This record gives sequence, structure tokens and C-alpha cells, in this order.
Amino acid sequence: MELGPPGGSGPAEPGPRLRGLRGADAAASASSLSRFGAEAGCRASAVAAVLPAGGSGERMGVPTPKQFCPILERPLISYTLQALERVSWIKDIIVAVTRENMETMKGIIQRYQHKRISLVEAGVTRHRSIFNGLKALAEDQPNCRLSKPEVVIIHDAVRPFVEEDVLLKVVTAAQEHGASGAIRPLVSTVISPSADSCLDHSLERARYRASEMPQAFLFDVIYDAYQQCSDYDLEFGTECLHLALKYSHIKAKLVEGSPDLWKVTYKRDLYAAESIIKERISQKVCVVMDTKEDEEHVGHCLEEMLKTELNHVKVTSGQDLQQIILEQCYNFVCVNVMTSDFEETQRLLNMVEESNLSILYPVVVISEEQKLRESLRQGTTIISALIKERNSGLIGQLLVA
Amino acid sequence: MELGPPGGSGPAEPGPRLRGLRGADAAASASSLSRFGAEAGCRASAVAAVLPAGGSGERMGVPTPKQFCPILERPLISYTLQALERVSWIKDIIVAVTRENMETMKGIIQRYQHKRISLVEAGVTRHRSIFNGLKALAEDQPNCRLSKPEVVIIHDAVRPFVEEDVLLKVVTAAQEHGASGAIRPLVSTVISPSADSCLDHSLERARYRASEMPQAFLFDVIYDAYQQCSDYDLEFGTECLHLALKYSHIKAKLVEGSPDLWKVTYKRDLYAAESIIKERISQKVCVVMDTKEDEEHVGHCLEEMLKTELNHVKVTSGQDLQQIILEQCYNFVCVNVMTSDFEETQRLLNMVEESNLSILYPVVVISEEQKLRESLRQGTTIISALIKERNSGLIGQLLVA
Repeated sequence: MELGPPGGSGPAEPGPRLRGLRGADAAASASSLSRFGAEAGCRASAVAAVLPAGGSGERMGVPTPKQFCPILERPLISYTLQALERVSWIKDIIVAVTRENMETMKGIIQRYQHKRISLVEAGVTRHRSIFNGLKALAEDQPNCRLSKPEVVIIHDAVRPFVEEDVLLKVVTAAQEHGASGAIRPLVSTVISPSADSCLDHSLERARYRASEMPQAFLFDVIYDAYQQCSDYDLEFGTECLHLALKYSHIKAKLVEGSPDLWKVTYKRDLYAAESIIKERISQKVCVVMDTKEDEEHVGHCLEEMLKTELNHVKVTSGQDLQQIILEQCYNFVCVNVMTSDFEETQRLLNMVEESNLSILYPVVVISEEQKLRESLRQGTTIISALIKERNSGLIGQLLVA
Repeated sequence: MELGPPGGSGPAEPGPRLRGLRGADAAASASSLSRFGAEAGCRASAVAAVLPAGGSGERMGVPTPKQFCPILERPLISYTLQALERVSWIKDIIVAVTRENMETMKGIIQRYQHKRISLVEAGVTRHRSIFNGLKALAEDQPNCRLSKPEVVIIHDAVRPFVEEDVLLKVVTAAQEHGASGAIRPLVSTVISPSADSCLDHSLERARYRASEMPQAFLFDVIYDAYQQCSDYDLEFGTECLHLALKYSHIKAKLVEGSPDLWKVTYKRDLYAAESIIKERISQKVCVVMDTKEDEEHVGHCLEEMLKTELNHVKVTSGQDLQQIILEQCYNFVCVNVMTSDFEETQRLLNMVEESNLSILYPVVVISEEQKLRESLRQGTTIISALIKERNSGLIGQLLVA
């Protein structure tokens, strides 16, 4: 299965992560990563990440560079930044963007409250952009809070589904081997054309791999390689592992990655990314009842029904809403049994609005009337249809179960 | 842009093609393809296609083999068969399926009215399945309507978006060169690992291509190659072009394909395919008015509004519905201005049901009341939301604009 556990802590789940919620995660990371300086109070920037994001996205066939294409109204790169930010032991994230996209990028960082990001200007090629990112980490500039890391991760802005475990694997392997990169089996056979566009030879598929991202390097290994490499490499090269091999004589350790590391390249990949994100955020729903008694009657029935369609269903009479919002639930169903007005719904809407959740995704709030009691099955179908599609065109509609 | 023209005659548009509609297409094909025996009355099976469909789909992470995974409730392979069937000069389509999926496949052929299909049993590998397909075409068996073609196309069951133009290109090139195949630029760098999973070397991405499908061969070239090839090739090989080179000494002509030739491999690819199909079939809508007069008032306004969201909008008062259904429109909006009952809607529903369209995709029939006149903008948003999502969970709902 290519997808992370639905409703789990995968990178496609929206943030920002709120304080006080990452205790368990942080503890787990810290134990395996103490040597990266993740201990409390340690300032050493042991691991940093560089994201080249200067591409024009010409293969996408749309004028917006792909890293800025919106998925559920949020730019693709913001999902990727979030996936990296969640990993507490990555101390700095350097993003290389073109001068004309610098303001756009600053706006994204502000709007989605990204932390630990530094921007550098992209070069005209991918390698030049990465080199600019490395330079920012290498040079001790006055008034610059960045410091040289032991290990640097290089990732793509257009691979939003990177998980902590693969990041940990490449970083660990880089510490041991000097360089490391994620790989995947080839989907198509690779062939070499002759000058007249005829088949010269084909490669045996099983003997080759696709080189994916993330990759990680001891900082000195990759920085030395970039400092030595030729203009030809900087202009036409595509592979950082190749530079480490050619100039620093380091044979990178290759780590098997999951299918969801794939690079968003074509328009169809945007469609796929949107569907994956929708699937992940639609698995958790909170049913808000208007009285305590109902929680035990209608609420329980609805909970059972919804569980046939969704992974996580929680029923509440509203006292602990603030906590539920903190737990990153994006879907709420209000059941009004006793009252025919929408007090509870309004209270929820206000709370959601204040929570900052709504700037991340369309939030679906569904209000159901008493009839639900009679046709819970139909209600369940409607609720999961609305949650899964998240279509804002249906806002304000009264749907009858 | 990777997508075909929305609302055009792309392969992802549903069939079956109805008689009397393909005149223009057929004439165009016949002129360029007369040498393939496409002339009226010519029995020569100049071009056939072989589709290996015996895969288990293990990479998809779901128990159903990927070629049988549903997209909008219809199995993936049915879209691919339809794309090939539309090309009138492909005389026979041989599908290789495993014994356990034979009945499933027969059911699909019957349900979606596929024509010109012959089934053979798949082998345990892709090459063995293709070989079985070729044997069925080569051998003159009694009571078998198949005859040996001049050119054979080999395609994948899981590449549903193949267009006639690329099929024509590979067939023409195969006639000239003996073999031909579609290629695409590499998305990732290809690397060769050493035995200890370290980088041995990386390939210069620009010098290599991904070998995609369709491919085409002079029948004798590829059949001879399969008859000669080793058990090792049949077990572990993946590339037909390689067999033609190795055993028939034919250097295949490589033809640049479009991005939509990609192979549905992972679950994300199913998501992408569904989104592409939804996008294509949602671009055409027919607004049905209940009286002739209204067609000129509300109808005209609604038409203008809808045109801002959808490519093809047609307004009718219902006389020419049969013709519109024949033209493969899948979306109808009924506007009831004069009458408050749903006579026109019921008439349309009956017609759609009889037309066989409804077995292909969810058909969206939206009924709007007089309020539409006052809030056409909101109505347009609702209509396009419904058409684009095609969510059956909302069937029977009364939506208010």
C-alpha cells in the first residue's frame, strides 16, 4: 500500500502542529536521534535540509510552477515544508526560490506559519540552486542564525509525502557512508536511443533503480563536491549522488523508499496528490450532539454507522471541542435533536474559525436534524460523501437524510 | 498539457460509440490507413492488438489486480479496450487473462459491449502472455475467425489513455522499420546499485528514455523473436523491443509519446486516472428547459454562466434529446419554470436509462426550480460542483440556489 496509515501522523496531514501535542513523537525521535543534537537545549544544528524550488514546471503544462500549484487551495510546497518541519531534529530548512517568486514564497511562509525556513535565491539550474542553499549553511555570516550542519538533507519541493522514517534512514546512512539516497524500482524499462531515434540497447530493468529524494550527505562531502564540480555538471547534471561519487569519491548508500516519495511532475500527479490528501483528512470525524443524553442514543448509532465508512469517529456533546480541534480533526457533524436552532453549530463554526484550521482546508460542518434518527444509513452516506469530496459548491445547502 | 482536449474524442470518454456517429472520424482514418485494409468491405486483418492482462497488481497494494480496479464503477481495462475499439482499423484485440479472471473478463466484455475482442489464457509472465496472444493470431485454427495480421500492436491493459495518433505513429513506423515503440523522457535519474546497495554509477538522464506502450511490430518480426527466445527471456525479460533486436535484429523506431501514456501502477495512479476521466466527462452539459419560451430567457442566462465553468453547454427544450444523448453528453440540467412537477425530468431519466449511458458512469440529472432565475450564479456553482464530483451520495437531494 503506497499510502500512509489514513488518519495517522503522515506528512499530508495539515498543520501547523500545535504546541503540547508532539510530546510522544518528540520523545521517540529524540531517543533515536540524540546524536543529531536533538536533546533539549542543544543548539548544534546537526541536520539541515535544502529544498531547490526554482523550477518552472514546464512539464505540468500550466503557467504556475508546480511547487506553487494549489492542492485544496494550499500551495504544494507548503505541504512539503510541513512534512519537514514536523521532524523536530531538522534544525534549518533552506529553500531556494527564484527572485520573481520570492514574495510569493514569503507569503506562503507567513500564511501557513512555517518555521525554521530560510530563503536563498535559486540558480538557473537545480544544481546551482542546491549549491546556493549549501553556501548559505557553510558561510558564517554576521547576523545570520544559520550554522554549518553535520548532515544536510536534500529534498524536492514537489515531493510532499516524505515521512520521518525515510529521512531518518538517509541521515543515519549518510553519517555512516558519507552519502545516501532513496531509491525505487523502475516502472518502465530504460532504453538508450541512437542518434536517429532508433533503439540502441535496453537496460535490464531489475539491475537498475530510480534515484528519488530525499538524499542526505555529510555536509563537507557534498559541499566539497559542489565547490569542485565543473560548469558542465552545474548546467546539465541532475544527480547529487553522482557529484559525491565523482568529486568526493563517496559511494552513496541506497535506501529503499516508499512509492509515496514520487515527484509531482505532471498534472495527473497533482490530481493524485489531492486525492491522497483528501483521503487522509477525511478519515477522522467528530459528531457534536446538542445534549448529553443524545450522545448516548442517536450519537452512538451514528458513530457505529460512520465507523463503517471512516476510520476515526468521535462523539461529543461539545465540552471538549477545543481539545478535538487541537488534535487536528477537520470534520464535524452537528446533530440537533432537542433544539431546532443552530446554536451549537454556530459555536463550533466560531471555534473552528478562531483555531486557524480553516485557512488550511475547506472545513466541512454538517448540521443534521431530527430525521437523522430515522434514516441514519442515508445520513452516513451523505456525511461521508461531503467529507470525502470537500466541495465548497455545496456550502449552505440543506441535505435531507 | 498532458490531457487530451476536454470534451473531445479522447479515449477516456465513455462508449459504446453508437452507430451513425463515426462517419467523419472513420473517413479521416480510412484515408490515412487504406493500406492497413480499412477500406469498406476489406476483410484483411492488417492490424491487430495484443493486451497482456494477467498481472496480479501487487504494487497497487490492493487484492484486485489493477486492470480490474474500478474507476467510476467501471473496470480500468474496459477504458483501455474502448480506446482501442474506437480505432476502426484495429481489426482484432487479443486479451490475455489468467484462468481465474476469465469469467470476470467475459462479464466486462458483455456489460460494456466490447467488440472485436478475443480472450486467450495468460502465461505466468508478461512475455508468456504476449506470446500466447501472438500464437492465437498466427495459427490458422478451424472455426477461428482470427487471421494473421501484417502489424501487431502490443499495449498494456493499464494504460487507458492511448490516443489514435500515437497508435498510428507506431504502426506506420513498424511498417517501415519492422518495430516501433513509444518513449518518454525519464522523470528520475537511473542508477546502478552495487551488490552491497551502494551507488555503482548513475546514468546521464538526457541520454536515456523510458520505454512506454504502445509498441508495434511487423507480425513476423515479433513472432519469430518470441519463437526463438530463451526461457530466461520469457521469465525475466520485460521489453518486446529488446526481443525484436536480439532475435530478429531489428532496431525499433522510437516515437515520442504524450505523458498520458503512463502506466497505472500504484494506487495514486488510479486516483489520477479517475480525476482525468471526471474532468473529461464533466466538460459537456445539456440544459433542458420545460418550454420553448424559457429556452430564450432563463436558458440563455444559465448557458452564459455555465460557459464560464464548462466547455460545452447546450440548451434545449427537449425535442432533440435523443440526438444529444447519442452525442455522448453525460450531464443534464432540467429547469422547471412553468410547471412545478417533474414531467420533463422523468422523461429525460427514462431516455437516459434506455440509452445505456447509465451503465457507464453516474449520470447527473439536476432539477432546478424557479429560484434559479434569481440566483443563477449560485446555481452554476452547484451544477458544476455536482457534475465534476459525480458523487452518488447526493442522489435525491434538493439543492437550493
